[in-house]
Amino acid sequence: MYGLGNSVQAFEHELTLYFGKPSCSLCVTGTASQQSMLRVVMSKKPGRPAALHPTSHMVWLDCLTDGAILEAGFSEKCAENLGMDGVMCGEAHRVMTFLDVEACLGQEPRPALLAVELGQRMNGGASMCWDDLLKTRALCSTLDVWLHMDGARLWEAAPGYGRTCAEIASQFDSVYVSFYKGLGAISGAALLGPSDFIASSKTWLKRMGTVAFSCAPVALSCRECFRKHSSEFPDRLIRLREFVEALSTDPFINNVVRFDPPVPQSCLVHCYVHGEPDALEVAHARVQHAHTKLWGRLRGCGHTLEQGHGGEQYFEWSMGPQNASLPLEALVDGWKLIAASVASSCAKEHAERD
Amino acid sequence: MYGLGNSVQAFEHELTLYFGKPSCSLCVTGTASQQSMLRVVMSKKPGRPAALHPTSHMVWLDCLTDGAILEAGFSEKCAENLGMDGVMCGEAHRVMTFLDVEACLGQEPRPALLAVELGQRMNGGASMCWDDLLKTRALCSTLDVWLHMDGARLWEAAPGYGRTCAEIASQFDSVYVSFYKGLGAISGAALLGPSDFIASSKTWLKRMGTVAFSCAPVALSCRECFRKHSSEFPDRLIRLREFVEALSTDPFINNVVRFDPPVPQSCLVHCYVHGEPDALEVAHARVQHAHTKLWGRLRGCGHTLEQGHGGEQYFEWSMGPQNASLPLEALVDGWKLIAASVASSCAKEHAERD
Repeated sequence: MYGLGNSVQAFEHELTLYFGKPSCSLCVTGTASQQSMLRVVMSKKPGRPAALHPTSHMVWLDCLTDGAILEAGFSEKCAENLGMDGVMCGEAHRVMTFLDVEACLGQEPRPALLAVELGQRMNGGASMCWDDLLKTRALCSTLDVWLHMDGARLWEAAPGYGRTCAEIASQFDSVYVSFYKGLGAISGAALLGPSDFIASSKTWLKRMGTVAFSCAPVALSCRECFRKHSSEFPDRLIRLREFVEALSTDPFINNVVRFDPPVPQSCLVHCYVHGEPDALEVAHARVQHAHTKLWGRLRGCGHTLEQGHGGEQYFEWSMGPQNASLPLEALVDGWKLIAASVASSCAKEHAERD
Repeated sequence: MYGLGNSVQAFEHELTLYFGKPSCSLCVTGTASQQSMLRVVMSKKPGRPAALHPTSHMVWLDCLTDGAILEAGFSEKCAENLGMDGVMCGEAHRVMTFLDVEACLGQEPRPALLAVELGQRMNGGASMCWDDLLKTRALCSTLDVWLHMDGARLWEAAPGYGRTCAEIASQFDSVYVSFYKGLGAISGAALLGPSDFIASSKTWLKRMGTVAFSCAPVALSCRECFRKHSSEFPDRLIRLREFVEALSTDPFINNVVRFDPPVPQSCLVHCYVHGEPDALEVAHARVQHAHTKLWGRLRGCGHTLEQGHGGEQYFEWSMGPQNASLPLEALVDGWKLIAASVASSCAKEHAERD
């Protein structure tokens, strides 16, 4: 049967126990998981918009390189990519707070749902603080607003709260998690929540054409990666914080890097490097030649422009098994080479100007 | 990159050459392929409905067991599953003809697109005749109606025309084909057409969440099955016609079976068996015990009710590699056992009545 193999159902059941939710639908992509969630919730509350953080990946299907453009095109992108009305909750350059939630849910028409991303990818993996989350939960219950977790990086973010995924999930009506990011599966996502909600989400997944004749290859990959890696994240966060502290406190390296947030809240952090992209890539190529890869891809200026910093490039630094196994000394040595290269190119610039 | 691995692109290119179309998007499901096609075409021609055969799988996401209910719920199902207005072209119990097309496209507002299914699954794999297809092509061009092929079973249907898939595809603006049915891939579909159309379809596939982080497993399975099996269909049709002729001309067997259509037009045919489902399954279990499986699943009364035949069950008989390798004698012997069983249960019924 389409998408209903026993192994898939058994894994969905395993996830309901792990997250403490009644029901689960496994799906090939997170976009589809969250689209199905939106359809189910929004169709029950017509005329009310969805409240989302300005950087929500539901609205922006591609990775973003520049936060400044976000707020301008938000409504249009909601209509185009989600086919529904959306309102912004909070501001692009920082995590959502309870004050944002209060202001947003006070609008008329009242939003039908609020999605909170833990951790917020575009904000260096930082998350709404726990107290604000509890207040948000209470307010949503009072106002009949569906509270959804965009947990694409929940495994990465949970150790930052010092709580289990189930404890965090208990504050939400529905939860989406991903299996291909920190867990390393070939693709795959899960949506969890009440049984009738999940049954409706499965109908939407079918309508959208995301239920393959066999999703066993994806499901098996998700299951194996879940079982192997889901317990590793607290250690990954400890390791990332060690790394960030070492780089932030080195007087030579901290001339050229800063971290957003300064202390990682999840197993992902944004690292801003002083310098022009081409020069940085040349320096990185030399470091890589000595067998230490420091970043995957420079992603533009991020929120730098809004915050008044210029001449920086950022990259996403995720602590997966590979990065975690890197010796601290190799990392520091690599970054010293980058810092030296940036310093010499600055000196050269000054010399040319004089 | 999401869905953009070199091997996937190379296979898409291979398909453009095979079908003689400028561009191709590979996708995990046919539902998503055709949904993306509908979004692209319909959004360019607002206020106009989609014209579809009453049995279209785009409207009915599940397999249908009874044709009679189809026409009643068509509009509602279009709205529910497609999120758009649909009008019926033709009648549920037979293939679409040019007369149907003329009548349908004469309506106001004129349909934005017409989808023709080759072969029509719910009509025993029969297809619109070639002359009607040519006239339909010409009329659609005249009236600015997008002509789309639902080619879920194009490989099965092409030998019935005595034409290549490319020759048939040349009559359509866009073509969807499937890789998991006759070709046996784990899942997967392709949409082909003009380059700007395919580029837009890829945007929709992304919006709907059908573009996985890696679709390589699906793409590789599609490619291998395409290369291995796509040339086998003319022989499969010859084999199916031999089988059907043997069963139809056996005076004992033809008391209990008939075929729709009587001579297969594709490598799929519907076989109607006289008898009640439970009794038929008991008889089949005995035959299977002697190592010959005659059907997969009985699917209810099909179009029987509309056409005045009662007491029949139908099943889909697809000629894949496994069925094709069955010795004709084993098949005939198996069906003689079914026929004997049906005859004796009729006799028993009569005896009980007397």
